[in-house]
Amino acid sequence: MRVGVLTGGGDCPGLNAVIRAAVRKGVQEYGYTFTGFRDGWRGPLEGQVVPLDIPAVRGILPRGGTILGSSRTNPLTAVDGVRRIKENLAKYEVDALIAIGGEDTLGVAARLSDEYGVPCVGVPKTIDNDLSATDYTFGFDTAVNIATEAIDRLHTTAESHMRVLVVEVMGRHAGWIALHSGLAGGANAILIPEQRFDVAEVCGWVESRFKVRYAPIVVVAEGAMPKDGQMVLKDGSLDSFGHVRLSGVGEWLAKEIERRTGQEARTTVLGHVQRGGTPSAFDRWLATRFGLHAIEAVRDQAYGAMVALRGTDVVRVPLAEATAKLKTVDPRLYAEAGVFFG
Amino acid sequence: MRVGVLTGGGDCPGLNAVIRAAVRKGVQEYGYTFTGFRDGWRGPLEGQVVPLDIPAVRGILPRGGTILGSSRTNPLTAVDGVRRIKENLAKYEVDALIAIGGEDTLGVAARLSDEYGVPCVGVPKTIDNDLSATDYTFGFDTAVNIATEAIDRLHTTAESHMRVLVVEVMGRHAGWIALHSGLAGGANAILIPEQRFDVAEVCGWVESRFKVRYAPIVVVAEGAMPKDGQMVLKDGSLDSFGHVRLSGVGEWLAKEIERRTGQEARTTVLGHVQRGGTPSAFDRWLATRFGLHAIEAVRDQAYGAMVALRGTDVVRVPLAEATAKLKTVDPRLYAEAGVFFG
Amino acid sequence: MRVGVLTGGGDCPGLNAVIRAAVRKGVQEYGYTFTGFRDGWRGPLEGQVVPLDIPAVRGILPRGGTILGSSRTNPLTAVDGVRRIKENLAKYEVDALIAIGGEDTLGVAARLSDEYGVPCVGVPKTIDNDLSATDYTFGFDTAVNIATEAIDRLHTTAESHMRVLVVEVMGRHAGWIALHSGLAGGANAILIPEQRFDVAEVCGWVESRFKVRYAPIVVVAEGAMPKDGQMVLKDGSLDSFGHVRLSGVGEWLAKEIERRTGQEARTTVLGHVQRGGTPSAFDRWLATRFGLHAIEAVRDQAYGAMVALRGTDVVRVPLAEATAKLKTVDPRLYAEAGVFFG
Amino acid sequence: MRVGVLTGGGDCPGLNAVIRAAVRKGVQEYGYTFTGFRDGWRGPLEGQVVPLDIPAVRGILPRGGTILGSSRTNPLTAVDGVRRIKENLAKYEVDALIAIGGEDTLGVAARLSDEYGVPCVGVPKTIDNDLSATDYTFGFDTAVNIATEAIDRLHTTAESHMRVLVVEVMGRHAGWIALHSGLAGGANAILIPEQRFDVAEVCGWVESRFKVRYAPIVVVAEGAMPKDGQMVLKDGSLDSFGHVRLSGVGEWLAKEIERRTGQEARTTVLGHVQRGGTPSAFDRWLATRFGLHAIEAVRDQAYGAMVALRGTDVVRVPLAEATAKLKTVDPRLYAEAGVFFG
Repeated sequence: MRVGVLTGGGDCPGLNAVIRAAVRKGVQEYGYTFTGFRDGWRGPLEGQVVPLDIPAVRGILPRGGTILGSSRTNPLTAVDGVRRIKENLAKYEVDALIAIGGEDTLGVAARLSDEYGVPCVGVPKTIDNDLSATDYTFGFDTAVNIATEAIDRLHTTAESHMRVLVVEVMGRHAGWIALHSGLAGGANAILIPEQRFDVAEVCGWVESRFKVRYAPIVVVAEGAMPKDGQMVLKDGSLDSFGHVRLSGVGEWLAKEIERRTGQEARTTVLGHVQRGGTPSAFDRWLATRFGLHAIEAVRDQAYGAMVALRGTDVVRVPLAEATAKLKTVDPRLYAEAGVFFG
Repeated sequence: MRVGVLTGGGDCPGLNAVIRAAVRKGVQEYGYTFTGFRDGWRGPLEGQVVPLDIPAVRGILPRGGTILGSSRTNPLTAVDGVRRIKENLAKYEVDALIAIGGEDTLGVAARLSDEYGVPCVGVPKTIDNDLSATDYTFGFDTAVNIATEAIDRLHTTAESHMRVLVVEVMGRHAGWIALHSGLAGGANAILIPEQRFDVAEVCGWVESRFKVRYAPIVVVAEGAMPKDGQMVLKDGSLDSFGHVRLSGVGEWLAKEIERRTGQEARTTVLGHVQRGGTPSAFDRWLATRFGLHAIEAVRDQAYGAMVALRGTDVVRVPLAEATAKLKTVDPRLYAEAGVFFG
Repeated sequence: MRVGVLTGGGDCPGLNAVIRAAVRKGVQEYGYTFTGFRDGWRGPLEGQVVPLDIPAVRGILPRGGTILGSSRTNPLTAVDGVRRIKENLAKYEVDALIAIGGEDTLGVAARLSDEYGVPCVGVPKTIDNDLSATDYTFGFDTAVNIATEAIDRLHTTAESHMRVLVVEVMGRHAGWIALHSGLAGGANAILIPEQRFDVAEVCGWVESRFKVRYAPIVVVAEGAMPKDGQMVLKDGSLDSFGHVRLSGVGEWLAKEIERRTGQEARTTVLGHVQRGGTPSAFDRWLATRFGLHAIEAVRDQAYGAMVALRGTDVVRVPLAEATAKLKTVDPRLYAEAGVFFG
Repeated sequence: MRVGVLTGGGDCPGLNAVIRAAVRKGVQEYGYTFTGFRDGWRGPLEGQVVPLDIPAVRGILPRGGTILGSSRTNPLTAVDGVRRIKENLAKYEVDALIAIGGEDTLGVAARLSDEYGVPCVGVPKTIDNDLSATDYTFGFDTAVNIATEAIDRLHTTAESHMRVLVVEVMGRHAGWIALHSGLAGGANAILIPEQRFDVAEVCGWVESRFKVRYAPIVVVAEGAMPKDGQMVLKDGSLDSFGHVRLSGVGEWLAKEIERRTGQEARTTVLGHVQRGGTPSAFDRWLATRFGLHAIEAVRDQAYGAMVALRGTDVVRVPLAEATAKLKTVDPRLYAEAGVFFG
């Protein structure tokens, strides 16, 4: 049995841990051999491979990034994409494919598996934690830790200067990083994409915080939007992933707070530091378990399945179902956090 | 409504986060007032209180330890313990009690609530993660992160000197910290209290690691024991919690590995650094949610209940049930890790 | 003897460590009493004081910020500023003043001491490390560590996507943070205010990095400027410190690199996280020693002096001299780093 | 010109940074080629080499350990040692040797250079910072940061349980790590090898700390000894470096404090975590500069010299002088710290 592995989409701490676990278990317990495909779906599409054996995965557990490279290539929109993938899998004698990625990468895996009979197993990966079929995705905990540390640091500079600090964190469509890091960092307001915010209300929280002689921290997800439609996007261009750039809400909000409250406000955009570097212990553990269970799924020929975390168990769910719906923040969960606002 | 709060047992990052969340929600949403009892059950037993209001909980979220102090006092074994507690609750006009602690502290809360009608709500706390009714307890993730960082550091010194490094982590009766940090840190052997280890097998893993020119890291829980009964405890004395001191397995094992394999071996005992200091983001989030839900339980007069994490939900379980059984590592989960040994 | 203490200017990890050390030594060894002045020179100007004794400084060593607050108030430009300060010092019976701050705060101390006979001792503080009389200022090492950690994380996301990452760090007039964190983080280009950069040369380094299949990290100080004068400032407004905002070079550079090389480029602006939070061990040690030696200077009535680090010794230098000249990066030191560019 | 490089002695964060900087500068600026010798002096003695070029040093800057391996081999005590080294240098056409190491490794380099005409340049390395010719050695700052973080964590567990915590840090013959981390961590007593401590005095500090309702942290260097000669060494065996094991003072002291004061006391021995893992920014910067200047010394044929830090300059000193005397803690510096005891 020869197993192909690819990683697609944005960077996410834990990718290497999945690869390592899958290779260790596949080789040692079942005698499988492995082929690494380079740069996401571009690898099987264009036949770009790298050797993948036990020496290749030594020492990669604590490293961020992915030794296989990544891309946003979508083979289903490429000319003859499916045929070329099948030919390359045949050429390299790959019997099953483990695709590690987010909504897009796994959506391709779902269709290749269900519609075209390509034997795929999926491993969910999104820093944003917005895949509905799993309690958590790896990378999320690392991002939340980094954001929380930054908020810890910003508290003291806010206090020293009695200044509002707006922290923009990742989360285009879901506010999980904002919610978790905002709660963990003791933010005085948390703004998420799921619920349009009222600038006047945010300014109210800011002012009530100053009244007790403390300086407020506002955590805002990059995809959060004000209610009143006043926000002018800094930049309407498309990013490399084909999404409209929504960055800019943090800076916009700081200026709006200054204008309305007269309090000095500053913005920090955490950006890519949230998705690079060594994974947290939780993410290494989760990614490792996902890698082990992906190999079990291959052994069981459970193609079309994705591994997922439910409580403390790793289970299998249909790929198609897993990628159908975005997991957004439950309004009740968000309401729970409201007690800390202001 | 006046709510008493106490923290009992060993130190655990996140205790202050629970206290803060409970006070913030209780005061702001329900208009409750609070009384802090000092040093675990000693507080209500001896009537030692501290003021507990919103200013008192400002800034404590990121701090380790507990602003209320802690102890191992068991009021059920004290003369007239139950009566004195009832008298002190009456004296301070406390209507409900939130007890934050581990097996012992919550066991007292269960009996006070169920047998003596003292209105208690429990919040589970154990660094060891060995309470059966909840997926995780706060403090555990922090401990695992600290242990994993230490293992990361020890890898390089092991490699530079081609030396075995034995890392002894917390876990008297359950191997959760060893299992998670060992997996996350890329250990070459993980030894847990749930399963007696075979020194010869451990030495085999050590030797197979040297064969590929890498130096092995062995993670051992403080409560792990060898199969062959050869281990001589360094110290049979009782610690402050009344348990026999089992420390010493790490040092014993390093000497045994040296003796059997001829390879140089060293031990690092992580000790108390695992349980102090600022909580990880996950632990702050979990502790905060436990605090919020404990207040909800008080509002619902759900006395005799403990809050618990199930998947991503915080639920209520009977205190009595929650403290009845130790949550040990499932043998299948431990077997899963075996692929990385050697 | 009663000693006044004030902290002025921007936030900087280590301020509290200075205050604590001065108070501990002053009270315990010489029986001094202390008065804290609030918010920099505004404190003595407006007579705003806070109690400052041993209980007040307990536990503040590891905390960022300053328990005394800070401001950019310049009493020399205030109506009757010097007279009001003298009156307030007399009113609170303050015999000597320890002023902890940067160029502006210490410049005031120098003039008050030399021209108006106000007994001042200075402690240098600047995150930018650009005070000429001392080898290092506290806060700098913390900032460099934070920036280096961020660069470490950004390397992996740069590699995974084969993308240029531009990291903008602090340093309006001096490139010390950029130089140190760029060297420590393994940057492929470091751009500092002391030397205008050639965008074409930077693009050359970027391209040579891609040629060996690695992705480049460019570290740029916020005050760095291109040679060709093409840069359009994002924002010509004044910040709270009266300086023109020079932020924006990072974003400008990333766009310029994209335009010229065709490679995708992203910017991360580290911002205020560099100056908040707990100080590094070096900064706690340096700040503590500065506090101890400031008290020695007070005891010796060495008014008009500033404490400074020379090698491993803390010495005294005239305040006037210390604030006369900005310490910029030596061109030879910058040239030394050039071997790592590209 | 072909340059040999070797690393000897104990592990120390920053070794790889020296190697990388030397190779980058040597290859790129002077066109040198390099030969890596394995495992300290064993490499040139036994002719064990590894390739050392620019690809070999990619990515090693942030990694602890040494890609060249290390040992305590002393070629001067080996049969025909000098002749064999000369033969191997000739065989591999090595024109100059950069020896990175501590007192022992550099002592060999000094004699080889001065007495036998082997062209050596030295780079000082000791985690203990006890080499007299340089202000700092790399690795020290990392160790102090790790110890300080541990002390930060231990404070909270000490406070929660009102318990004495004794922290044993590295430092057999010099107390630099204890002094710096003790000051930075806010220890209530710091005990160093340079000055025998009085257990009664330590107990006095412990008790005075409890009187203000705080729990004391005692930092003790592994080589510190009590005045009264009561201490019984746990273990008289020799370690791999030929020194008598002095570990055990921490545990002994905790028991002695318990016995004399009646307060509960615990020990944490930080051990090898202090010398592994990624270097701090300061250590990466210092090690990088040492590497660059070592190549300059080779270019200038300044054999018999060692690079050293003086203030912010890297200078050259004679190897023989540099290794002649241990740099211990100045009694006045230690006295300065005394204000924080108790």
